[in-house]
Amino acid sequence: MTDRPRELGVALIGYRFMGRAHSNAYRQVGPFMSPSLTPRMKVLCGRDAGAVAEAAASLGWEETATDWRDVVRRDDIHLVDISTPGDSHAEIAIAAAEAGKAILCEKPLANTVGEAEAMLAAVEKAEVVHMLCHNYRRIPAVMLAKRMIDAGDLGEIYHYRGTYLQDWVVSPELPLLWRFRKEKAGSGALGDIASHSLDLARFLVGEIAEVSGDLETFIKERPLLEDPSRTGPVTVDDAATALVRFADGALGTIEGTRLALGRKNYNRFEINGSKGTVAFDLERMNELEVYLESAPPASRGFRRILVTDPEHHPYIDSWWPPGHIIGYEHTFTHTVYDLLEGIAGGASPRPDFEDGVRNQRVLDAWERSARSRRWEGV
Amino acid sequence: MTDRPRELGVALIGYRFMGRAHSNAYRQVGPFMSPSLTPRMKVLCGRDAGAVAEAAASLGWEETATDWRDVVRRDDIHLVDISTPGDSHAEIAIAAAEAGKAILCEKPLANTVGEAEAMLAAVEKAEVVHMLCHNYRRIPAVMLAKRMIDAGDLGEIYHYRGTYLQDWVVSPELPLLWRFRKEKAGSGALGDIASHSLDLARFLVGEIAEVSGDLETFIKERPLLEDPSRTGPVTVDDAATALVRFADGALGTIEGTRLALGRKNYNRFEINGSKGTVAFDLERMNELEVYLESAPPASRGFRRILVTDPEHHPYIDSWWPPGHIIGYEHTFTHTVYDLLEGIAGGASPRPDFEDGVRNQRVLDAWERSARSRRWEGV
Amino acid sequence: MTDRPRELGVALIGYRFMGRAHSNAYRQVGPFMSPSLTPRMKVLCGRDAGAVAEAAASLGWEETATDWRDVVRRDDIHLVDISTPGDSHAEIAIAAAEAGKAILCEKPLANTVGEAEAMLAAVEKAEVVHMLCHNYRRIPAVMLAKRMIDAGDLGEIYHYRGTYLQDWVVSPELPLLWRFRKEKAGSGALGDIASHSLDLARFLVGEIAEVSGDLETFIKERPLLEDPSRTGPVTVDDAATALVRFADGALGTIEGTRLALGRKNYNRFEINGSKGTVAFDLERMNELEVYLESAPPASRGFRRILVTDPEHHPYIDSWWPPGHIIGYEHTFTHTVYDLLEGIAGGASPRPDFEDGVRNQRVLDAWERSARSRRWEGV
Amino acid sequence: MTDRPRELGVALIGYRFMGRAHSNAYRQVGPFMSPSLTPRMKVLCGRDAGAVAEAAASLGWEETATDWRDVVRRDDIHLVDISTPGDSHAEIAIAAAEAGKAILCEKPLANTVGEAEAMLAAVEKAEVVHMLCHNYRRIPAVMLAKRMIDAGDLGEIYHYRGTYLQDWVVSPELPLLWRFRKEKAGSGALGDIASHSLDLARFLVGEIAEVSGDLETFIKERPLLEDPSRTGPVTVDDAATALVRFADGALGTIEGTRLALGRKNYNRFEINGSKGTVAFDLERMNELEVYLESAPPASRGFRRILVTDPEHHPYIDSWWPPGHIIGYEHTFTHTVYDLLEGIAGGASPRPDFEDGVRNQRVLDAWERSARSRRWEGV
Repeated sequence: MTDRPRELGVALIGYRFMGRAHSNAYRQVGPFMSPSLTPRMKVLCGRDAGAVAEAAASLGWEETATDWRDVVRRDDIHLVDISTPGDSHAEIAIAAAEAGKAILCEKPLANTVGEAEAMLAAVEKAEVVHMLCHNYRRIPAVMLAKRMIDAGDLGEIYHYRGTYLQDWVVSPELPLLWRFRKEKAGSGALGDIASHSLDLARFLVGEIAEVSGDLETFIKERPLLEDPSRTGPVTVDDAATALVRFADGALGTIEGTRLALGRKNYNRFEINGSKGTVAFDLERMNELEVYLESAPPASRGFRRILVTDPEHHPYIDSWWPPGHIIGYEHTFTHTVYDLLEGIAGGASPRPDFEDGVRNQRVLDAWERSARSRRWEGV
Repeated sequence: MTDRPRELGVALIGYRFMGRAHSNAYRQVGPFMSPSLTPRMKVLCGRDAGAVAEAAASLGWEETATDWRDVVRRDDIHLVDISTPGDSHAEIAIAAAEAGKAILCEKPLANTVGEAEAMLAAVEKAEVVHMLCHNYRRIPAVMLAKRMIDAGDLGEIYHYRGTYLQDWVVSPELPLLWRFRKEKAGSGALGDIASHSLDLARFLVGEIAEVSGDLETFIKERPLLEDPSRTGPVTVDDAATALVRFADGALGTIEGTRLALGRKNYNRFEINGSKGTVAFDLERMNELEVYLESAPPASRGFRRILVTDPEHHPYIDSWWPPGHIIGYEHTFTHTVYDLLEGIAGGASPRPDFEDGVRNQRVLDAWERSARSRRWEGV
Repeated sequence: MTDRPRELGVALIGYRFMGRAHSNAYRQVGPFMSPSLTPRMKVLCGRDAGAVAEAAASLGWEETATDWRDVVRRDDIHLVDISTPGDSHAEIAIAAAEAGKAILCEKPLANTVGEAEAMLAAVEKAEVVHMLCHNYRRIPAVMLAKRMIDAGDLGEIYHYRGTYLQDWVVSPELPLLWRFRKEKAGSGALGDIASHSLDLARFLVGEIAEVSGDLETFIKERPLLEDPSRTGPVTVDDAATALVRFADGALGTIEGTRLALGRKNYNRFEINGSKGTVAFDLERMNELEVYLESAPPASRGFRRILVTDPEHHPYIDSWWPPGHIIGYEHTFTHTVYDLLEGIAGGASPRPDFEDGVRNQRVLDAWERSARSRRWEGV
Repeated sequence: MTDRPRELGVALIGYRFMGRAHSNAYRQVGPFMSPSLTPRMKVLCGRDAGAVAEAAASLGWEETATDWRDVVRRDDIHLVDISTPGDSHAEIAIAAAEAGKAILCEKPLANTVGEAEAMLAAVEKAEVVHMLCHNYRRIPAVMLAKRMIDAGDLGEIYHYRGTYLQDWVVSPELPLLWRFRKEKAGSGALGDIASHSLDLARFLVGEIAEVSGDLETFIKERPLLEDPSRTGPVTVDDAATALVRFADGALGTIEGTRLALGRKNYNRFEINGSKGTVAFDLERMNELEVYLESAPPASRGFRRILVTDPEHHPYIDSWWPPGHIIGYEHTFTHTVYDLLEGIAGGASPRPDFEDGVRNQRVLDAWERSARSRRWEGV
């Protein structure tokens, strides 16, 4: 049929947590969001052939592969989705760019600024569509905050206050997973969760100019996976705090920790401007709290907006009637939708690899500051 | 001095829970609210001379007395405050009215409609100022709700949804206090707490025309105070539920229970109208939740108004700067202030004894309905 | 392969709101929940051939049909899913039962008690698996409440307090949709949303013995769809309130309204027992509030349990790590999972058609009581 | 009478906001808390004779004076309460100490570390009882948090996260009050509100060793009081942020700002330890949120403890039954009670002047760090 959406061959590299979330997005984007291009779930790629086969059957991929090098070159693949750990992003992305593929890369873009810059250079040279997957930008409540800020509803921004709190590493019995080792993970709470909060800071407030950062590893040894009777050193932070200064002068605080008992996925921010305030908490991701000074004085107060109105709230017209909330994985579906529209239109949606580079530079300044014990420029 | 407020001699009958709360109001109304008349705390009255003396010393009363009959006739007493249990209200109030005194009477006005009507007749005949102490009307958040409703902000009212939940009788070990005996207390949760919710319903929505009520006593026997090895029957309800119809057609539900674990003083109401909604919870009595359809669609939501703004919120200019909350006893101070202004101006503030009679009629219809198992007119 | 799940041919009758939600459940149950039987999305059925074809393409159905009579007899169909309006449920379900098919039927089971009883008789006679789709029973937080109640954590139950509040009919400009006409919809807020609250009451507390119910239609005329310059009468309720008595003596209040501004999908209940309380709100469906008297006195309080723990909370091991919330449509996926397991094991999961009959009898008593103005037995 | 509490003559220097709050405490401590010593409200002191006389009449002081030097030497004065702005604290306190008086001094103890140290030396030399009025330590919810931490309920402390947010300076029309001038106020948000948060940090977690602080003045000019057509420079901060390190290794963030629209008095902290978390918000000061890992896994969650139980919660047995909340000024009454007991027993209650010195040193390090752009030791 002439009016059928064109198909786009997708290869997904990686099939764990992010692999499941991305696969779901490719399955759901069609039925719910009717994108201009239809993703065809061609190849799932991973090193363990058996595990990949099982995952592909469950997640809905047509084929499997164990070497991403072959995959990124295939003619029937148009989009390469990189959902592996950060230390392999650069190699895969650069190869995919050279092969002329559109790329979706999980955050963080890379483990170092250098790698990130090389990736950006590659996609720019190849002139391919590139996107960084910071899915929380596409929560309807976050996007609504963005709209309000862009419309000037908050006025001049004075403060960003971001905390991403989790508690899954509190038990000292938890073994020395790869996430606790710097050579694999790059960093701990910093790159894993504080990076989300700083990406939202850049998205909502603007570029960060300077950082005074602190890092700590409270639980310094953990049982070895291979022999729990012995322990090995944790070489990444489990808590990260920072003061920041935005380029336009606003003040910020950003914190990520894995040691905040009771906070399961508490990615919270509050932004105060000269005309109003917005606040958000990922654990209640369908809500946005808003205070507007423009309301009549006697009835000013924080509004809990249930961001589920198909007529008035971002992305919701794809889902359910008012008050019927959406969940975590929907944020990836929105991301994939915007990526597909970007590919259809030939433009890289934000956040792109340049955002990835900028995020990485802030993380780098944070780490430098934690060592130098002084403010560092980004 | 010519501009000093005139003094008003006060006698307080009763010195337990309500006696403490009323005494505090007379002490605090001057320093904080500067009423037109200054209450002078003349006489505290109760049957146990020793206990009264101790209470008077602690609460700040000049003298004590053991017979209210003498007290209500004294020339230096201008205001009689009745804070005894409900079964003695009528006799005291009628005598005070006949002696030409202004009267503040704790709720419920009486234990029966007949007594309440006799009291109203007495104060009307004597042309004295009379006021019923339903202190929750004078919570700033409740008064703000009243203002909004009167201003038409909620439009036509469709629903009142009132629940007053407590949990203090859950333990079956709690002895057979006088509050569990009908001859003393009149009723249980019905008159004690559901009556507050229905007074607020009348205050905020209007007169109640019909009731379908239910009453239950879940814990039917309790240890005797005098001999805990034996038990006696509980003769009042511990839970009361009702559907009501307001004269103007709105629907209501009202519930009072002493068996809602975790709810300590949860006097909550929600009112839905054609233009908006208000909701209130006594456990967070400095807040009012408001939803206004008139807000821009994308930013509609329940506002949590912190009702602490001296410039814009009722009664608050007597207290502290924004965000500095007030407590339970302040509601009595507001009540006494309005009473003093009423006496100064010669007008009975609402709720007055007529409100007391009307409240009693609703309670009576509720009890009749619980027996007849059908709707009863008020 | 011997260990591949067996396939089950599914036909879905109806493709609007519920059709979308059910289709999603069939697509998602495999990738996320690995049921014993794999649903194969064979036929989507509806009267408008073009619309059905479009829906089938979007929702993932292999074929379409316009006459359900043909569909329910097909040999390759093993499960008939009825997602049409209530007035057609009985005819389709009885035919499907006679054809020996397992049946999933959207709530309400029927528009009358008589129809519901006939449907139950048919499935019992045919000995087919039957299930009523009351999806909210399978919200993890609701199921956790059920577990706690069954384990005795709340002790003896005293109170059920259920309100299902929405606000979508507030505008009098909204036209006279079929939902406002009794001949099509059966009833208004009563059958549409109050029925959810009473199903949860029966699920969590037990059978309802008596009802004192009230019904009201506040907005009595609406513009005709075909000619908005004229209006026609609304013949269903837009608000429904009731007192109920459970067979075991507990007291309940249940309310459904479409006129509670700001409440978008506020299906809230609170249950008080002799040892604790649970409270739930659909707008925050990933949370359960729990108060347990067994906690140490100084630290008793309402706990906000984020019901997202794969290790400890119902259904969550199929989804994401702690704190990553799920959405509305997941409740259907859980329902379909339990249905598939039921079919695999040859047993009808609750709620089944008998629950449907019992729910219908309560609704019937409610309507009778609204007319008789007295309590009616169920 | 032999068992009457002994009287203690009190002089209060200053009669504005804090003067009103302290006066109320002296009036209320007797009736509600029955301290061992009865405060007698002898002298109110201020420079404007007329204003002081009016205040004394309203607030309940027997006499007035205009020179604090005379007052602190009077034989009938045993307690000197200093409620003036910070720049006069040192002089008054040192004179009072030399006169052998017990001293209650409003926070901050002084505007500089040097002054604070001199004050501490004076009270130690004179061996008088001294107390710093940081009233928020004596909020029942805060004291409950303290008890839980001291009992080890939270385990090892990892994080303190304190924010004190207000919004009263947002309007640029607000004139150049003395609070905006460094020579009078010492600092802005830093000393006024961030200082509360750091005092709570020290109270609940321990001594602070190092600070990386930032300060900003967003609104740099304001209309002159004397001539609103001209403006003058704001010489204090309106926003202050800091990272801190506690002596025992815990990480902290502390922020004070007067530019957070909608936050009226949002003194919030959260403390995460190895066994649990507590969180508090002054705008809901009767509540403490607690998460305890020791709860059964399926029912873990943040508890909202309504800290109003006379049997189990600090200070509450002086007030009302459960669920009847207290207000802002009660915290001063608790403070005065503990001071009176301290004087009766001859011991200085915490926080004392040594706490004042330590708080001042942290503020000083914060200011030094804001200049040096590096971490500074306390």
